[in-house]
Amino acid sequence: MNDILKPRIAIDMDEVLADTLSQFLSGYNREFGENLTKADLTERKLAEIIPADRRARLRHYALSPGFFRDIPVMLGSHAVLEELRERYEVFIATAAMEFPSSFHEKYQWIKDHFPTFPDSHIVFCGDKSVISTAFLIDDSPRHFDRFSGQGFLFTAPHNRAETRYPRLNDWADVRRQFL
Amino acid sequence: MNDILKPRIAIDMDEVLADTLSQFLSGYNREFGENLTKADLTERKLAEIIPADRRARLRHYALSPGFFRDIPVMLGSHAVLEELRERYEVFIATAAMEFPSSFHEKYQWIKDHFPTFPDSHIVFCGDKSVISTAFLIDDSPRHFDRFSGQGFLFTAPHNRAETRYPRLNDWADVRRQFL
Repeated sequence: MNDILKPRIAIDMDEVLADTLSQFLSGYNREFGENLTKADLTERKLAEIIPADRRARLRHYALSPGFFRDIPVMLGSHAVLEELRERYEVFIATAAMEFPSSFHEKYQWIKDHFPTFPDSHIVFCGDKSVISTAFLIDDSPRHFDRFSGQGFLFTAPHNRAETRYPRLNDWADVRRQFL
Repeated sequence: MNDILKPRIAIDMDEVLADTLSQFLSGYNREFGENLTKADLTERKLAEIIPADRRARLRHYALSPGFFRDIPVMLGSHAVLEELRERYEVFIATAAMEFPSSFHEKYQWIKDHFPTFPDSHIVFCGDKSVISTAFLIDDSPRHFDRFSGQGFLFTAPHNRAETRYPRLNDWADVRRQFL
């Protein structure tokens, strides 16, 4: 199908396509000899369950060269994204402005893991209400507030208490919803 | 006025906010001892009026460290952008994906020249039809093809023959149109 005729969908990167939380947990466990897992987070952010004097380390990890380049692909995202691209015009939309040093690594991450994904459909932004697509899959509900399309909340520990938006628990859920 | 109530406008960077063409001309004139000016381009691109065996140098300039960081601000853009921000919710939208090495320099350029411009309203993209704003000011007519708002063509030598879109010749024209 010609791309112009396909419905448009925007997909977030961190904690949706990319398992950024696992990358933070790895850095933290390595530095402090801990064994924290996603299950330990329940409804909270990593920064909320670790000692206050260690919180600045999380930002340090995100600013370290290689952090965004080496993030594991989220379980199931690779195959489903490729299937979505057949029926939808897909944009990858990431709030890269929080860590400007991450621009190039995020771009390279997409090229590494989705080598045929077109540059023209990569968006680095801040406020995702500027994205014009029919759908947005994101783990941060704040992006849905002024988004003109339909937002779908991708489950992450920090958003488990959120009830305002339709939810997708994993990439199998994405497939069921859109394919 | 609260930003949420303002109409939204997206403004391109290269050849609209930033005088990228002058930066290319400077590099070319310096290397080849020439004295080309914008007036020499008439309706053509720089790459079209220089000898074929020198064209690859233009891409080399764009890939050189510092090229995007040092671009002069387009005449008149600084004051009018600040005025626009009072009445519009302004996004800076730049097709940075053509030169991924430019991400960080473009970001720093915005911070250098518009230090109060919010990170949340900077967008690096490819196909600007993904931008959801009422207006888009851009020198590349291709971005208007699927743009859902109203496009305004900012005059540059390469687009002088284009007649399909309302045109803004300079930043004084932007002020007259929007303020």
